[in-house]
Amino acid sequence: MDIAAINALPYEAFVNTFGNVVERCPLISAAVWSRRPFESLADLEAAVSEFIEALPESGKEGILRCHPDLAGRGLQSGTLTQESREEQAVAGMDALDQAEALRMARLNEQYKQRFGFPFVICARMSDKADVLRQLSERCRNERAAERDRGIAEVKKICRLRLRALVRDKL
Amino acid sequence: MDIAAINALPYEAFVNTFGNVVERCPLISAAVWSRRPFESLADLEAAVSEFIEALPESGKEGILRCHPDLAGRGLQSGTLTQESREEQAVAGMDALDQAEALRMARLNEQYKQRFGFPFVICARMSDKADVLRQLSERCRNERAAERDRGIAEVKKICRLRLRALVRDKL
Repeated sequence: MDIAAINALPYEAFVNTFGNVVERCPLISAAVWSRRPFESLADLEAAVSEFIEALPESGKEGILRCHPDLAGRGLQSGTLTQESREEQAVAGMDALDQAEALRMARLNEQYKQRFGFPFVICARMSDKADVLRQLSERCRNERAAERDRGIAEVKKICRLRLRALVRDKL
Repeated sequence: MDIAAINALPYEAFVNTFGNVVERCPLISAAVWSRRPFESLADLEAAVSEFIEALPESGKEGILRCHPDLAGRGLQSGTLTQESREEQAVAGMDALDQAEALRMARLNEQYKQRFGFPFVICARMSDKADVLRQLSERCRNERAAERDRGIAEVKKICRLRLRALVRDKL
């Protein structure tokens, strides 16, 4: 799908296609449809980023709270979005041994207790050891820094999801 | 559920409970969780309204675009959210005769072509004749007026969904 084809999509098809480039936030792609025509995929990606940046802090935290835990209940019960399931698998989150699984669960809880939102990381750019190390380190950050860091990861995830969608529909 | 119980909910339970008070926009309830503690249900409702009002125009249009058509494909294929299905049934959208169904489909298309978002109305406060009349009339409005009107309807829907949730979980 090239940018001309994307620009020609009615809002319903656009939201059906791009509605989950930010996890469980179809509002965002539905909003950026107002910004057509896009010059390029990078321009569409920038529109998503700008929309996110213009949100109040609570809105950015809201985006993070729409993300599932890594190796959490959603993965175990099979209720993740397709994108999230695939990404967690790439980082080995579906193949933790018992000790790793316990450590992830404990650190996820600690993180959520401290910040009031879940640990978000671009899993496609990580592996098991990296996820555990970063989760452990980021638990010690300040809340505002972690909110910004989480949103930076959301943007990386969005970039990879956008590219995959456009490539798969070529 | 009283306001103390609502204020005690961790964000995951809060989003699971209130995530669809604005149709397919869990981001919004996930964001207003940051505003706890709420003094009352009206205070929670006001926090949702204020979050929506603070969005740029594209964000408000994005909210509207997350809504299904009335008597549209989602109703026919059974893919509506539970809340939306029940609301459309209250307004008789699942019991249109052939002429009414054709008229709804034609007006919905006309409306979406003109505005780039769907016709949104608080169906629980309407009936079949009222929906058809308002849809026909509102097709003639200006875009900005219709965006505001649609958002006013979103807030009415939100109020009724919030009250039903709190009542059902008493």
